[in-house]
Amino acid sequence: MRNFISAADAQDIDGLVQKALSYKADPFKDRSLGAGKRIGCLFLNPSMRTRLSTQIAAQNLGMEAIVFNVGSEGWALEFEEEAIMSGNTVEHVKDAAPIFGKYFDILAIRTFPSLKNKEDDYSELYIKQFIKYAGIPVVSLESATLHPLQSLTDIITISENEQKKAGTKKPKIVLTWAPHVKALPQCVANSFSQWVNQWGKADFVITHPEDYELSEEFTAGATITHNQDEALKDADYVYVKNWSTFKDYGKVYESDPKWMLTNDKLKLTNNAKVMHCLPVRRNVELSDEILDGPNSLVTQEASNRVWAAQTVLSEILSGK
Amino acid sequence: MRNFISAADAQDIDGLVQKALSYKADPFKDRSLGAGKRIGCLFLNPSMRTRLSTQIAAQNLGMEAIVFNVGSEGWALEFEEEAIMSGNTVEHVKDAAPIFGKYFDILAIRTFPSLKNKEDDYSELYIKQFIKYAGIPVVSLESATLHPLQSLTDIITISENEQKKAGTKKPKIVLTWAPHVKALPQCVANSFSQWVNQWGKADFVITHPEDYELSEEFTAGATITHNQDEALKDADYVYVKNWSTFKDYGKVYESDPKWMLTNDKLKLTNNAKVMHCLPVRRNVELSDEILDGPNSLVTQEASNRVWAAQTVLSEILSGK
Amino acid sequence: MRNFISAADAQDIDGLVQKALSYKADPFKDRSLGAGKRIGCLFLNPSMRTRLSTQIAAQNLGMEAIVFNVGSEGWALEFEEEAIMSGNTVEHVKDAAPIFGKYFDILAIRTFPSLKNKEDDYSELYIKQFIKYAGIPVVSLESATLHPLQSLTDIITISENEQKKAGTKKPKIVLTWAPHVKALPQCVANSFSQWVNQWGKADFVITHPEDYELSEEFTAGATITHNQDEALKDADYVYVKNWSTFKDYGKVYESDPKWMLTNDKLKLTNNAKVMHCLPVRRNVELSDEILDGPNSLVTQEASNRVWAAQTVLSEILSGK
Repeated sequence: MRNFISAADAQDIDGLVQKALSYKADPFKDRSLGAGKRIGCLFLNPSMRTRLSTQIAAQNLGMEAIVFNVGSEGWALEFEEEAIMSGNTVEHVKDAAPIFGKYFDILAIRTFPSLKNKEDDYSELYIKQFIKYAGIPVVSLESATLHPLQSLTDIITISENEQKKAGTKKPKIVLTWAPHVKALPQCVANSFSQWVNQWGKADFVITHPEDYELSEEFTAGATITHNQDEALKDADYVYVKNWSTFKDYGKVYESDPKWMLTNDKLKLTNNAKVMHCLPVRRNVELSDEILDGPNSLVTQEASNRVWAAQTVLSEILSGK
Repeated sequence: MRNFISAADAQDIDGLVQKALSYKADPFKDRSLGAGKRIGCLFLNPSMRTRLSTQIAAQNLGMEAIVFNVGSEGWALEFEEEAIMSGNTVEHVKDAAPIFGKYFDILAIRTFPSLKNKEDDYSELYIKQFIKYAGIPVVSLESATLHPLQSLTDIITISENEQKKAGTKKPKIVLTWAPHVKALPQCVANSFSQWVNQWGKADFVITHPEDYELSEEFTAGATITHNQDEALKDADYVYVKNWSTFKDYGKVYESDPKWMLTNDKLKLTNNAKVMHCLPVRRNVELSDEILDGPNSLVTQEASNRVWAAQTVLSEILSGK
Repeated sequence: MRNFISAADAQDIDGLVQKALSYKADPFKDRSLGAGKRIGCLFLNPSMRTRLSTQIAAQNLGMEAIVFNVGSEGWALEFEEEAIMSGNTVEHVKDAAPIFGKYFDILAIRTFPSLKNKEDDYSELYIKQFIKYAGIPVVSLESATLHPLQSLTDIITISENEQKKAGTKKPKIVLTWAPHVKALPQCVANSFSQWVNQWGKADFVITHPEDYELSEEFTAGATITHNQDEALKDADYVYVKNWSTFKDYGKVYESDPKWMLTNDKLKLTNNAKVMHCLPVRRNVELSDEILDGPNSLVTQEASNRVWAAQTVLSEILSGK
């Protein structure tokens, strides 16, 4: 693996899952793999789970991890080619990235979307410029449109739960939109769709209010419906997530609480496990009763973030 | 030791003191104790001494320490049960704490009081919620009402100085209120009172202006007087600290400079050593002449913070 | 080496250069030198390259590096003697520095100039107070008027390039002022001048617009001219940097784009290598064509920051 910015970088998802579970069973088994290696974790947007899990994953592999919060610790970066930098940006990615490439063996970056200009966000200019100019492997810690470490984590978590079951029935996975108080990126939903589709081991349904269609680039292959109840029927996993509109970009059209998952709605499912990437707005996105109940996988998911990150770093370090 | 949030968690204060002094003599003697273990240091309020000393203490024990500044790096946490999170808080402690419990072996947290609602602050909701939901040992790096690592440090420092003396006379320790320009928590004063009382090896006097009574929960057992001169008489240690009012909560009634300790006042004492937890407002709380003079223990105290933290982490790691 | 705050702390610049290049060839060769040692990196002003390179340098030597961003993580320090601290500063350097001296083996500090009061800035009060009160070696990560780690890096970079050449002709080095959008410190220009003069192995020319004279304390020995074209003639190295005025302190008199280095101007030189400490405002200070062209040394310079820092820490650790 050279870079890790989308499902396209994962040639064998099940292989990654197995590796992740082997790290979960024995976190320090590859402690020498990263000895003398250094990862730079660059945050253009704040992070808690991603930051901590990546740092821990690197340490488990014997790497030194250095966190740098751009903005609070650093300065505004310029990403446009040929910019005349007489404004607020103080350093061009063309100058900064090669230096990260000299200081580190792997560069992990969190960027973010504007939610104002769809073309800009979906061009993934920021992370692509880092890849272009850093000269070392780049790992996405969430970009403008995707969040691959989260999605690998999600597949790991589903696989873990599937392994407990007898039989070989394909699970039904439902990605459902949920209400929120502000406009959020489509990253997690895009990325989950992309990974579940590429994984190909589930019946995959996406449900959301009208006008909340995601990009077909990621959803193609899934069944899409505006009828949440129908979607939930016999589901084995319900993945809950808010996102803002894609077509008329970055808007919030809908906040109807009826889209919030509750225990009543869960009765429609096959006693489905409930997933969310966190952070979650309790009693807005997801009810207390579900989050505090036996069907919630959210803590398991978040703790699996370490093993997903460790797997990706391990693949890159071993040049696989 | 399971958690460390108050003197009640210390069964044998003198035993802790001896352990701390043994670490001071040989910082790396238990370097293997924390190998492969990880401490998360979570700051909901900024910190310098506490952050650095805890990080160093963990490293001395071979642990990996990860610092996370909530607020500047993260997001606003919700602590109320059943909250409908449509406001400013973005993640509930019920969701965040279990994840810290998966990522770390020990969780160290600094919370803070509102100084507006006494019942809320004295319920210690924040740190108790972390203990309830993290599932791993929790160490207070200062909470709304107490600062036990500081107080353990203070007892260590007093013990070190007592060991230099011949004879077995109980020392007289005076906690004196000092002026300040803003309303400060009662934490350090509460905690110092609690620890000195539980330690039981000193004559303990507290002096402050009228209406600055601390909670009897912590002070019971000490002699309390509004006459600073009388309190200082024959003192062996004078602990200087400002706090805001407790009864009529969080107010500043008094800023009379006559409460500031000076060399003249020190003449009333038994050539007392002067203590302060730092940071100190020079020439407001304490005069230059004392801080720069031979009676000041403030640097010794601050440097002992490392050994107090190392002792507590060691006790937790070894399950004592 | 006890402290490292100016060229005066470097007794043998060529010796430092050779040591740096030996670390570049074998970064971990002195990994045991810093074992059990700790460096505190204290930033009163933000930093990217300096922060990362110092942290990496320390790790390469086996030291533990702890970064503390004063301001975002800490609080405002007081530097004036006898201050009555009833204002915004919450801790005096007299109280903070000795504690850093207890927590760390080496203290590295970035301070900054006001650009308002020349006497204050050039007195270097901040870093001198840290040296006075910390009691351990102090390394400047840039101070109010100097940036010695940058300058050592620059000499290393020039030496590397000189070693590739046949012959023994002294190189011609030109420091040229460049336009910028805001008032910047004189640190880098002062420091580069001080180091090149002390090194003594180059013909050194400084060029800038009228009224941009630097302090003679640092420039004495160099040829100074307001004619950039004349200065550039036959240059082997052109060091590009903006600074604000020194005499009428901290002003921006000039922003004429004709002072920006371009390929056309480079034709006047001996195919000169172009240097800049970064961050650089593209197409304001330096043109894209130069930064992206074969003559630019800026990435090499920035990557050499690690070896400069490692050399200085190594000298201090080994007490040379």
